[in-house]
Amino acid sequence: MSLQKNPLWRILGGTMANLIEPKVLKGFRDFLPEAEIERRALIARIEAQFRLYGFVPIDTPVLEYTEILLGKGGGETEKQVYRFIDHGGRDVAMRFDLTVPFARFLAEHRQELPMPFKRYHIAKVWRGENTQRGRYREFTQCDFDIVGSDTAAADFEILLIIRNTLSAIGAGDLCIQVNHRGLFNRFLDRIHALDQSAAILRVVDKLAKAGAAATRESLERLVGGERAGAVLSYIETKGSFEETLAALTQAAGGSCFESERLRQLRRFMYDTGTAASFALNPSITRGLDYYTGVVYETFLRDLPGIGSVCSGGRYDHLAALYSREALPGVGSSIGLDRLIAALESLGKIAGAKGYIQGVIACLQEEDGGAYQALAEQLRAQGIACEVFSEAEKLTRQFMLAEKKGARWVLIPGKKPLESPLTLRDLARRQDRTGLTLAEAAALLREWA
Amino acid sequence: MSLQKNPLWRILGGTMANLIEPKVLKGFRDFLPEAEIERRALIARIEAQFRLYGFVPIDTPVLEYTEILLGKGGGETEKQVYRFIDHGGRDVAMRFDLTVPFARFLAEHRQELPMPFKRYHIAKVWRGENTQRGRYREFTQCDFDIVGSDTAAADFEILLIIRNTLSAIGAGDLCIQVNHRGLFNRFLDRIHALDQSAAILRVVDKLAKAGAAATRESLERLVGGERAGAVLSYIETKGSFEETLAALTQAAGGSCFESERLRQLRRFMYDTGTAASFALNPSITRGLDYYTGVVYETFLRDLPGIGSVCSGGRYDHLAALYSREALPGVGSSIGLDRLIAALESLGKIAGAKGYIQGVIACLQEEDGGAYQALAEQLRAQGIACEVFSEAEKLTRQFMLAEKKGARWVLIPGKKPLESPLTLRDLARRQDRTGLTLAEAAALLREWA
Repeated sequence: MSLQKNPLWRILGGTMANLIEPKVLKGFRDFLPEAEIERRALIARIEAQFRLYGFVPIDTPVLEYTEILLGKGGGETEKQVYRFIDHGGRDVAMRFDLTVPFARFLAEHRQELPMPFKRYHIAKVWRGENTQRGRYREFTQCDFDIVGSDTAAADFEILLIIRNTLSAIGAGDLCIQVNHRGLFNRFLDRIHALDQSAAILRVVDKLAKAGAAATRESLERLVGGERAGAVLSYIETKGSFEETLAALTQAAGGSCFESERLRQLRRFMYDTGTAASFALNPSITRGLDYYTGVVYETFLRDLPGIGSVCSGGRYDHLAALYSREALPGVGSSIGLDRLIAALESLGKIAGAKGYIQGVIACLQEEDGGAYQALAEQLRAQGIACEVFSEAEKLTRQFMLAEKKGARWVLIPGKKPLESPLTLRDLARRQDRTGLTLAEAAALLREWA
Repeated sequence: MSLQKNPLWRILGGTMANLIEPKVLKGFRDFLPEAEIERRALIARIEAQFRLYGFVPIDTPVLEYTEILLGKGGGETEKQVYRFIDHGGRDVAMRFDLTVPFARFLAEHRQELPMPFKRYHIAKVWRGENTQRGRYREFTQCDFDIVGSDTAAADFEILLIIRNTLSAIGAGDLCIQVNHRGLFNRFLDRIHALDQSAAILRVVDKLAKAGAAATRESLERLVGGERAGAVLSYIETKGSFEETLAALTQAAGGSCFESERLRQLRRFMYDTGTAASFALNPSITRGLDYYTGVVYETFLRDLPGIGSVCSGGRYDHLAALYSREALPGVGSSIGLDRLIAALESLGKIAGAKGYIQGVIACLQEEDGGAYQALAEQLRAQGIACEVFSEAEKLTRQFMLAEKKGARWVLIPGKKPLESPLTLRDLARRQDRTGLTLAEAAALLREWA
């Protein structure tokens, strides 16, 4: 059938003179095999860690009612959300994070879940953001949360998982910077600035980007010069974790529930031999408004410039839009794209081209069945191998095998299932001849 | 902070009297842990098979230019597509399958890919279909294709993978029903009905649903009574694969490229000892218009009523909308949702509640750090275990542990890192007391 006669062609109305340019939307990406293999390997290692701690996966729809995702209000988020009217006239939107759908999920399924509930969710989210500064409009988040428990143990477990997961994937030495929003608010109450809490915390969150002078200016506009000075003094780190905690506790009016929580977390860090990975940094506040307790950001010591690769905190009212029952929780989110960029910078990416160990060469196309029969015997032993389907020159087949990341090429004889086999070692450019399949398989297991 | 004062609450404009009903869109689903664990386990087993044969993963954006997905035309597909205008005024749509994005991907990246190229893609797609008959608007497809090769070996490899993948995941005995559209078209040419090929093939594809009488009527309307009779006679199975092939070859005017292809595939089936899994069924035509060569559907012998769980075929012009270069290919798609439903019916679903083997009980909340230190020593040995964070009654902790799928509960002593441990065997409701951690770990490895 000619191209123009092909029914798909006719239906879609194409003509040879009228090709559609094959391109993806700005801010979106294809993942070619090498990149996708790397991404999947990383996700598998992250998942393995989550599972080791008793976290279980969930999934939620990509599309939700807009009202569910955005509530009734407007705000910055709304401008970025992919939103439209569906076939049934419903106002729908693509999820812009995994937290809001999780809140809806909890309100809906709470009775079916064992509490405290530990879930992870690794999935794509979409934001129609400005694509400057290498931001993507489609990206992957890895969220993990414990809900139904307001204990130091739950806070600490999230911190421990951040540390151990990043170290399991080779991100090197890291520093998790912790703070407590509740303690900050006690201090703001003491200086009569609690009513400006959300705005102040947001200004402080931008300190690293905006610089000290601009931060002071913004704070002064909010609460005047004297109180701006007090806030700036509060958010300065005061030495060790312990020294900083003592200073903050004093500034907040003495020992309280929140300072006790930080003290207990510090003890847990020592109990598990992980104290060196943590710092108390009073300028960490997190931009998102729903945090109420501990908050944290994670920096790689070898790459501090890329910013936090894993952030989160404690919230008390996540499901409050949908349910009257309070549901405290604590969680964190790994930015997978940023993390991959970091691991690439650190040279920690393996760069595999494929999953096969080797290839069965094709000498005569009509022997394709016999080649598969040979390959099946290797696959049954867990040896991944590809059967080439075209009887091209062997040198070309060797080249293609190398492109696909193969270590060897098995060259069948005249009668593929009976004749002796030749095994080409692509790395050493050597041949072993006169092998039975069992002898070849033994060698391959050795090389694997 | 009170609920109403919580900034998230304020931003989203909620009030206690004004809750948003937590519900998902019709045709969409949440996956709770048990279902999601099952889905992920199944995907992992399918992926393991793809990898064993040399297939590599890719990923493409969920959103594409509408023109890319739908071409310039309209048709049945367009009505089902989630389509909208984005922030930049672009006409965009959510992918409704993985084949069209793959065609665009090939046209864009062909030069970067080793040919023949074997890829798999497991991802969600969206169709605003009628949700009657248990259809979902969001569902997962598992596609695998070989492009850049028009050989019987490539056709056969896809068939072999269908067979071995479904059998690896416990779908039981199956029958892959094969046909060749090119041979069918030769026959139609011979009876002077080739100009109605697409319409005839579509009518034949619906034979099982529509019944013989309605099919005859439709065919008569298309090509008249005599030729309708010839088509009905062609699509009747004529005994064994070989007998049917002989009859079809004769009806199509004698031995030709297409009948040779089927003969070669049959030989490959014998060479690999898989012949019993395949049948030649001339009424299989596939609804999609882009197939040009072999086509196939897969039925489970224990559950024929659920329809095909894996279908596909050979196409020659998939990327033709975007590129002038022909790119022949052959591929298939597993319908994951239908397959899961089938495995559930067959009782082949494990029903795991989580990934943990056991739980560390919590006796005193301030010992949370020490409990984690104990757990870390087990996790370092690959033993997945959860640390409970609340010092509830032990019987309650046992119950919760069972709900989470744990086999045992480790009960620390007064000094968690020094005192002897007690190990509760939840299955046998027995305790082992006075254990060191090493002794407990040895038992746990035995139980795993």
